[in-house]
Amino acid sequence: MNGHKVAMLGTGLIGDFYTMTLHGPRGRDEVAVVYSRSEERGQAFSERWGIPEHTTSMEKAITHPDVDVVVIGLPNFLHEESIAMAADAGKAILCTKPLARDAAEAKRILDKVESAGIFTGYLEDLAYTPKTAKAVASVASGAIGDVTWVRSRETHPGPHSAWFWDKEKAGGGAIVDLGCHCIEVIRCFTGKGNRPVEVMAWADTLVHPIAAEDNAVVLIRFESGALGQFEVSWTFRGGMDLRDEVAGTEGTIWLNHFLRTGYEMYTTGGGEGYVAEKLESTEGWLFPVGDEIGELGYTAMFNDMFDSMDRGTEPRETFYDGYVVNAVMDAAYRSAETRQWEPVEVEWRGGKTERISKTIKTHDGHAIVKEELLPDGRRKLMLSDKNTGSIFDVVSPG
Amino acid sequence: MNGHKVAMLGTGLIGDFYTMTLHGPRGRDEVAVVYSRSEERGQAFSERWGIPEHTTSMEKAITHPDVDVVVIGLPNFLHEESIAMAADAGKAILCTKPLARDAAEAKRILDKVESAGIFTGYLEDLAYTPKTAKAVASVASGAIGDVTWVRSRETHPGPHSAWFWDKEKAGGGAIVDLGCHCIEVIRCFTGKGNRPVEVMAWADTLVHPIAAEDNAVVLIRFESGALGQFEVSWTFRGGMDLRDEVAGTEGTIWLNHFLRTGYEMYTTGGGEGYVAEKLESTEGWLFPVGDEIGELGYTAMFNDMFDSMDRGTEPRETFYDGYVVNAVMDAAYRSAETRQWEPVEVEWRGGKTERISKTIKTHDGHAIVKEELLPDGRRKLMLSDKNTGSIFDVVSPG
Amino acid sequence: MNGHKVAMLGTGLIGDFYTMTLHGPRGRDEVAVVYSRSEERGQAFSERWGIPEHTTSMEKAITHPDVDVVVIGLPNFLHEESIAMAADAGKAILCTKPLARDAAEAKRILDKVESAGIFTGYLEDLAYTPKTAKAVASVASGAIGDVTWVRSRETHPGPHSAWFWDKEKAGGGAIVDLGCHCIEVIRCFTGKGNRPVEVMAWADTLVHPIAAEDNAVVLIRFESGALGQFEVSWTFRGGMDLRDEVAGTEGTIWLNHFLRTGYEMYTTGGGEGYVAEKLESTEGWLFPVGDEIGELGYTAMFNDMFDSMDRGTEPRETFYDGYVVNAVMDAAYRSAETRQWEPVEVEWRGGKTERISKTIKTHDGHAIVKEELLPDGRRKLMLSDKNTGSIFDVVSPG
Amino acid sequence: MNGHKVAMLGTGLIGDFYTMTLHGPRGRDEVAVVYSRSEERGQAFSERWGIPEHTTSMEKAITHPDVDVVVIGLPNFLHEESIAMAADAGKAILCTKPLARDAAEAKRILDKVESAGIFTGYLEDLAYTPKTAKAVASVASGAIGDVTWVRSRETHPGPHSAWFWDKEKAGGGAIVDLGCHCIEVIRCFTGKGNRPVEVMAWADTLVHPIAAEDNAVVLIRFESGALGQFEVSWTFRGGMDLRDEVAGTEGTIWLNHFLRTGYEMYTTGGGEGYVAEKLESTEGWLFPVGDEIGELGYTAMFNDMFDSMDRGTEPRETFYDGYVVNAVMDAAYRSAETRQWEPVEVEWRGGKTERISKTIKTHDGHAIVKEELLPDGRRKLMLSDKNTGSIFDVVSPG
Repeated sequence: MNGHKVAMLGTGLIGDFYTMTLHGPRGRDEVAVVYSRSEERGQAFSERWGIPEHTTSMEKAITHPDVDVVVIGLPNFLHEESIAMAADAGKAILCTKPLARDAAEAKRILDKVESAGIFTGYLEDLAYTPKTAKAVASVASGAIGDVTWVRSRETHPGPHSAWFWDKEKAGGGAIVDLGCHCIEVIRCFTGKGNRPVEVMAWADTLVHPIAAEDNAVVLIRFESGALGQFEVSWTFRGGMDLRDEVAGTEGTIWLNHFLRTGYEMYTTGGGEGYVAEKLESTEGWLFPVGDEIGELGYTAMFNDMFDSMDRGTEPRETFYDGYVVNAVMDAAYRSAETRQWEPVEVEWRGGKTERISKTIKTHDGHAIVKEELLPDGRRKLMLSDKNTGSIFDVVSPG
Repeated sequence: MNGHKVAMLGTGLIGDFYTMTLHGPRGRDEVAVVYSRSEERGQAFSERWGIPEHTTSMEKAITHPDVDVVVIGLPNFLHEESIAMAADAGKAILCTKPLARDAAEAKRILDKVESAGIFTGYLEDLAYTPKTAKAVASVASGAIGDVTWVRSRETHPGPHSAWFWDKEKAGGGAIVDLGCHCIEVIRCFTGKGNRPVEVMAWADTLVHPIAAEDNAVVLIRFESGALGQFEVSWTFRGGMDLRDEVAGTEGTIWLNHFLRTGYEMYTTGGGEGYVAEKLESTEGWLFPVGDEIGELGYTAMFNDMFDSMDRGTEPRETFYDGYVVNAVMDAAYRSAETRQWEPVEVEWRGGKTERISKTIKTHDGHAIVKEELLPDGRRKLMLSDKNTGSIFDVVSPG
Repeated sequence: MNGHKVAMLGTGLIGDFYTMTLHGPRGRDEVAVVYSRSEERGQAFSERWGIPEHTTSMEKAITHPDVDVVVIGLPNFLHEESIAMAADAGKAILCTKPLARDAAEAKRILDKVESAGIFTGYLEDLAYTPKTAKAVASVASGAIGDVTWVRSRETHPGPHSAWFWDKEKAGGGAIVDLGCHCIEVIRCFTGKGNRPVEVMAWADTLVHPIAAEDNAVVLIRFESGALGQFEVSWTFRGGMDLRDEVAGTEGTIWLNHFLRTGYEMYTTGGGEGYVAEKLESTEGWLFPVGDEIGELGYTAMFNDMFDSMDRGTEPRETFYDGYVVNAVMDAAYRSAETRQWEPVEVEWRGGKTERISKTIKTHDGHAIVKEELLPDGRRKLMLSDKNTGSIFDVVSPG
Repeated sequence: MNGHKVAMLGTGLIGDFYTMTLHGPRGRDEVAVVYSRSEERGQAFSERWGIPEHTTSMEKAITHPDVDVVVIGLPNFLHEESIAMAADAGKAILCTKPLARDAAEAKRILDKVESAGIFTGYLEDLAYTPKTAKAVASVASGAIGDVTWVRSRETHPGPHSAWFWDKEKAGGGAIVDLGCHCIEVIRCFTGKGNRPVEVMAWADTLVHPIAAEDNAVVLIRFESGALGQFEVSWTFRGGMDLRDEVAGTEGTIWLNHFLRTGYEMYTTGGGEGYVAEKLESTEGWLFPVGDEIGELGYTAMFNDMFDSMDRGTEPRETFYDGYVVNAVMDAAYRSAETRQWEPVEVEWRGGKTERISKTIKTHDGHAIVKEELLPDGRRKLMLSDKNTGSIFDVVSPG
């Protein structure tokens, strides 16, 4: 039950969230050293969080003798380099999302850490939100039957650092920044063994003066026949919209993680302080969350990561998952260009998944399309003629 | 201000809703005769609504001397025939949605009524719901800037009559039944002069033993660059999900027409009576609407139709709109086959629409990508380098 | 089906809502003359609504030869005078809420119109909202068993005209302005034959520089044992909060009429125009209603009034109801002074109502307090010992 | 950062929640021994949670040499005895709510532990929910101005053990079981230094065959003028309704802790497993919470308790708070008998609180009652005449 000593790489918003979690609800772990490319930001960060050391040398942070775990909160273009360095140093690695800028890079990362034999975890926090975790368990228990459709939506007015907006450094735009969350949430609901077969994407740059897409809608067809759908945007107005919807043959689940969680507040603007990530204003009707790092999944995520590390098991979110996500995003970018469905090119480690089951009931040999109870107690059947396939009504006494 | 005498063609659920509206909130009009292919259903309908005459002869109903308006609530495959007959009789025609089974049929209908010079209206009730009407006016006034994205969703457990499920009679499945609503709602928000350029569709038959699709997701790209997106399903569990979302450069609108309208009820199952269209159960948590025909737009729709008729103007929803909707659905079906974006083939009567405007602000000649106020009062700019396009941060005193 | 000719007395906000309804959804009636104490306001009002005549003589308006119905939208202190004048003129009278400033005045009004034998209706719009009407019908059908508790809440930042704030002219403060709505809504749910027995009230002037109360919470005990509870405030921030909650032995109903009706909008503030009654701002997250006069009950109210007049029956809301409401408010004001429960002094025309029924089930002669199914399938009974009344658990196989 | 060894007294639902928290999110503490009056329940509990020892001797559990903290989850009538025993043993004590059955008992408990000089904490979980904690901080920062009114509501279909229903063992009914939560939540919002002056209560036994009240509504007047209001019920249908509303001079806060937290699910009833506390059914529309022990405040509560213990400071919820709560409940029971406002009899340790501030603005010497901007840009003032107090309108150019 002893804690871990962490080297935190990166001092952006995500580094703050990670450290807030480690030093807060987790409590038993400690960030021993922080790395930033900027001396100023490193110093501010270490003061903000009471971290003993800060450095502008990535190597020094990673190879720090006290450190057993490297947490990577760096821009995407620095993931491969930092992971390789940490793997060489034999440290456990937890890397932020997305794992890489494309599947080829992700695959090199995966090969590297697997040959190094170290513990790794993919920091996909939104797969760990309390609502998602409970809903995924509920779906797995059969509560909504076979999943037919999943919608995951993440939109806000745009990220807080320049590199996100730079297509080269990030590997893309809103799809890479936000879509990686959505894809993994969708996979949790459709089942991780359910292969993402092909992808259709619309992406456009509607508002901002950038080369990357600021809006996209992407469809993912899974082997079971289920459809995943995600919408990402850097032009949404009104805060951060973070919702999931799941349809199954026996039920429905709607999750709202941010703007409508049972906390509603109107203020004329007095008072002080941070309300929540990416809120657009500090007066009028506001919709904070109660425990932001809890609701966004950070607490449960680090618990799973360190518990798995301590137990010697795989965490729920792995580098392989990160690689699959990159492969889906690659297909999305290809589809946005070719304007047709594109296959997901991935070394698949999951198994085969059956088609969503149709159990057809019959009446006099005709398949029952629908059955309704009429107000007068009679039973109405809509039947598919066994010979012609044309559909007709039959009404019979209850 | 005198009312109209109506021939009601068809006695299905839609005929009930129409007559409930005409004899209820409208009050001043009267259904003088009802036509049904079935003597039994015609008689029951006429008794239910106090209609003086019923007949199994479509012609008799249409040419009834008292009748000045023919309201068509028949299955899709009977629209062309009944419209032609009413046009020849010189009666005003109000036709339920969709106008036809495909754009070719819709175009023949359009040509027919235009050459007959009669008044016609397209009974697209969901374009008339009080929320949609107010939101469309709000968008038109500029309240959310340029529209970038519209989602319209209509899903339920499936329709109540056999012909809906029969691909030949209906012209398709869930897209034809539900998507026609969504397309027109989307057009109201993107602007009716904003040409739907091309369509990408996923459609599948996941659950029911039918040839038509029971689930579909369709993307529509408009001339302005805005994206329309609709989801339709006949396999949704939990009632009827009827929602719209609109994103604009300056705002957001979310409408929920059915399951979450501020009316929540838990019951152990006592009491009696109809709660709302397509609710799945009569106990547990239920979400009725207050004024169902009002909320679904029927009241405002017939007001607009008869007011327009009396004034000699066009109603807000015209047969031409119905034809455009059919053209979009045709493109969706083609796309589901070809698996690529398909152009919308339509005789376009709208004008040209400009691309969503980007007003780029600059700082030292570099385009401002984003501007943020930091907690310490300083201003952070994310700038796009005017020469290289790479993006960098600048922090300056407030 | 011919419409009525109306004399509208008063040109405040309520006069606008009334005329908007009569000239809008009602359509078939016409305001023939409007009376205002101010020439300027009368002229503006008549121009705004296309009314042929306006006058500063109340008598002239009431006795106008075309007019058969007088609609009173005047300040409370002018109700008795105007009703008496209209009664003498033999016109039908529809009077806004509250009927009078206290029960004595209400009783004089009631006696006057009853001896005149004219048609009268009490314009309590909130008893007619589509949600309330449907929920009341649902309760009457037994859907939630016996009603045990009703909460009605109406709060906003304060009324728009000076006389409301003046204790003498209005007869009180927030209780008179808003509580009259709540009391009648509560009565609709507990049953109009269920006598309001006694009242306990807290009232205070917390914020505004006025003599009348700007906040109050009032409890009403009914003969059945049910409790009514209402909260009124002129200091609420965030718009107009208009909610009802009903608890029954077999169910629960929650109604939200204004701020959360399935219409949500974020705007940076562009666009124009009226959004909804008593919204506090025009940017940020706003919660309009779709059809405001419909949602607030005006449409259904005038339909019931004129239909009842035409049929020669009583409307759902009568002057007697208004008198009962005044009697309850009187008891509330007395209670706020005496700081104890005060009886409702009213000439009761309803009958007797039974106490909420307790059907006690027993087990071995002991009353069953609660019964639960345990996760392992066993049945847990909490029993009240038939001799001692002490309560004990028994667990038995399912 | 080392954990604590806990003796858990009691094996009811609350013992499960406490142990789930200690062994779950807390992680670093351990229940070393559990006490139950029943050998069977003690054994089952110790197996359920992997607790090394269980005993039917309260003394043995409390004086267990490994144990430094005694957590009391026993019925109310056993609090005083067990606290005295633990105080004598010099152990830290954390006691569930309510502290005692009445204020006299609570005062004896308080005197006992204060003379023993041990660490104590009052386990009022609902004061620690993430939403409440954040909202309380927001109110304290001035975000909604001066608090004028707080509503706290806790209702469900009734508790799970016999002793709750037994007036003698519990000290009362729904007020003692649920009202203790509400009172403390209200105090957190009005300010703990804001003295509860007097109380007015309605209580009745409407449905269950018990001597205690199954429904109550209670008003609490605070020294500042603010009103607290709570509603408790053991007859609510539909799950557990747990809501708070706070009104301030500059804003509004609405919290929903249970039935509407952004997690909505419809199921035909398949699947398995526990959904949430006091849900009434397992099919239809269900509203689970994500992280139940987090949302109900258990996690943050134990963190504060152990952190305070480790730091040697007072926790946020103290035995003194528990005593105040008992004093308010005593006043409520007296008021339900005497039917008038009853003073709260308590040894007050808080200070004095000022009356809610009214900052009156004036115009020409008259107090401004309200100020509105008219649509035409003019400014409308409602003024209170400085001499007569009568209120009049003035309209001036913007």
